[in-house]
Amino acid sequence: MIQQELLEIGKRAKQAARQLAYASTESKNKALLAMAEALLENEQEILQANTIDVKAAEHKGIKKSLINRLRLTSEGITNISNALKEVIVLRDPVGEGEVWTRPNGLRIQQTRVPLGVVAMIYEARPNVTVDAAALCLKSGNSVILRGGSEALESNKVLAKVIAQAAEESGLPKGCIQLITETNRDWVQQLMRMNNFVDVIIPRGGAGLIQTVVQNATVPVIETGTGMCHAFVDRDADYEKAIAIIINGKTQNPGVCNALETLLVDEPIAEDFLPRIGEVLKKHQVVIKGCPRTCEILPFALPAEEDDWISEHLDLILSVKVVPNLDAALDHIYQYSTKHSETIITENYSKAQRFLKEVDAAAAYVNASTRFTDGGRFGFGAEIGISTQKLHARGPMGLKELTTIKYIVYGDGQIVT
Amino acid sequence: MIQQELLEIGKRAKQAARQLAYASTESKNKALLAMAEALLENEQEILQANTIDVKAAEHKGIKKSLINRLRLTSEGITNISNALKEVIVLRDPVGEGEVWTRPNGLRIQQTRVPLGVVAMIYEARPNVTVDAAALCLKSGNSVILRGGSEALESNKVLAKVIAQAAEESGLPKGCIQLITETNRDWVQQLMRMNNFVDVIIPRGGAGLIQTVVQNATVPVIETGTGMCHAFVDRDADYEKAIAIIINGKTQNPGVCNALETLLVDEPIAEDFLPRIGEVLKKHQVVIKGCPRTCEILPFALPAEEDDWISEHLDLILSVKVVPNLDAALDHIYQYSTKHSETIITENYSKAQRFLKEVDAAAAYVNASTRFTDGGRFGFGAEIGISTQKLHARGPMGLKELTTIKYIVYGDGQIVT
Repeated sequence: MIQQELLEIGKRAKQAARQLAYASTESKNKALLAMAEALLENEQEILQANTIDVKAAEHKGIKKSLINRLRLTSEGITNISNALKEVIVLRDPVGEGEVWTRPNGLRIQQTRVPLGVVAMIYEARPNVTVDAAALCLKSGNSVILRGGSEALESNKVLAKVIAQAAEESGLPKGCIQLITETNRDWVQQLMRMNNFVDVIIPRGGAGLIQTVVQNATVPVIETGTGMCHAFVDRDADYEKAIAIIINGKTQNPGVCNALETLLVDEPIAEDFLPRIGEVLKKHQVVIKGCPRTCEILPFALPAEEDDWISEHLDLILSVKVVPNLDAALDHIYQYSTKHSETIITENYSKAQRFLKEVDAAAAYVNASTRFTDGGRFGFGAEIGISTQKLHARGPMGLKELTTIKYIVYGDGQIVT
Repeated sequence: MIQQELLEIGKRAKQAARQLAYASTESKNKALLAMAEALLENEQEILQANTIDVKAAEHKGIKKSLINRLRLTSEGITNISNALKEVIVLRDPVGEGEVWTRPNGLRIQQTRVPLGVVAMIYEARPNVTVDAAALCLKSGNSVILRGGSEALESNKVLAKVIAQAAEESGLPKGCIQLITETNRDWVQQLMRMNNFVDVIIPRGGAGLIQTVVQNATVPVIETGTGMCHAFVDRDADYEKAIAIIINGKTQNPGVCNALETLLVDEPIAEDFLPRIGEVLKKHQVVIKGCPRTCEILPFALPAEEDDWISEHLDLILSVKVVPNLDAALDHIYQYSTKHSETIITENYSKAQRFLKEVDAAAAYVNASTRFTDGGRFGFGAEIGISTQKLHARGPMGLKELTTIKYIVYGDGQIVT
């Protein structure tokens, strides 16, 4: 049974989607600009609501890194507003496509159209409320947002401000809706509203994503969990290797494209490990090593099975010495979440083999896994990074928020 | 808990997929040719097994149209073998893609790669066993087949013959596997084997498809249910309208792109309905009409709510008189399964509005819905017709059995 109020949200979203599907790029851009301006105009109200969330989180003793993600500042709101303006300049994929003519004269046009209703389920960061709404709207979708309860007050104001601006600028009522009920049962129901929701995108920790994957009947795009590996081959350039490992682990350890496991080729382990070990130590990175690593690096802690499986999302790096490329590929095959993997080598054939055999959204040679990102790939803003194979893989931009429709022009053709 | 034997099938499929992912087009084509030849060589054994299935079905009193789908003949096996040879000439999408270079010199290559392990769950027709295996193999996927229990003996021999031919020609063991256990519990388990199966494609009746959508945690591509509509506008060319309606309803009423509901514009109802009514009667089509239709056509039976919702898949057509295009669009919006819809009109603006506003895999003007088909769209063989929006929509060919992978060539780049 679906809650009446949730059903109403679904109906409104579907109704709005029906109109949004053929809204012009011009009218969508006008709405995005109005939303960006409305955020700046309502800065005070947003900051007040955010203060309530932050105080409640501090009171609950939530850890500092999470509170930092939750906190908004005047500058932060300007950034959110600017990010929204950047969506305006992105090319609208709706209506793009190809056309061909069949021997019987039938003209078939494969055209990009919006998905319809997108439901986003996410955790603490309130900027996702605005980012997601902007990308969904620009691609002609209506959006149902369900953010983390820690950010509820902030999200309420943000969603109210942008939805109002979008509607006042002419987009249909219900194009942006926030679920304000924090009862988890509502999320369970939302995941099964196949008649109203076309796709669910969960964004957050592995727990949230697994809950959605396990329980949704609405199609899901799995995002985010990144158990990323770097393999330093015996033919690696040490300088590149050290730069890439330090960048992968320390530049922003809390994100999904950060490095979690380092695999080192046995023949260079005794030479390379002490060098990288020193630099990691300087960067306050804790090493969880395999027995061979602990033998070579006395300051390494022994790794447990879970260190190979779960993201640290912190200044901790799992390190394993492997006999060769085959063993590295086997380790990655076993533990990878299919997000991003990199090999550091100067050997052409081994680089090509790694790129070919690694099964991941992004396979790198001699570059940091931190590049797996919509902006860094050149797509503009992203709604998430897909780690599944269906529909979208890797950074998802506007195109991934659309589907296709075949438009067929005939003059009386029948099948014979 | 997953059955040990099913787990073994999953492991073998995954292992095979790891190798198949980079099998050359040449080696895959060689296997397909061997499979096509093996079918002809083993014709007697296949026919014998099929006779067992057909006799059992007759004994059970299964209806004739189903038995006809089940029955194989010598000519039928030649057709299946020829269809397999046609897959050889289709272009292999694996390895195709685009490449671009980022300002920092990073070269990003978006490349098509196989999905991995595809599970097909389907009903009576044994040719699906071979068609599905051929398309999955050509696109580099291993396949787990689970056909209808009525075709079990036929499928056992077909799967054995083609799997053996594929393996003998050099493809990895486990690339084609059939589940021979008929216990439905196994299907339930298969749908939740996320670690071993990358996508499930159900092909068959609405009941089967809904069971999979409701229970699978593995990503699903929904296929097939087609509640297709034709709207005859007041500005229609009657001749085209009659040809398209008769073709849609009678050319092959048992398939998903057959016409199920005819909507007629009120101003022409009194003039047009008797004309189409006569032709439908000649073709033995039973009309289930709305009250207005029954008023005009005395031989029409009154339609019930279910006639607007469910496919007849038979020589039955639901007919409704609607006041105008808006009402037709509303009816379609409410009852469509988003498969194929057509408008018959000579009016430019109404045609364009229909094409734009109808939410379906294929929207037609002045052509039969029966064209929604991989072959007729020019894609070659199809693995099904997707009625969902994620990943694939409409006829699915080889490309839809692949995903993408980003291959990134660096020379030491790090994120700043």
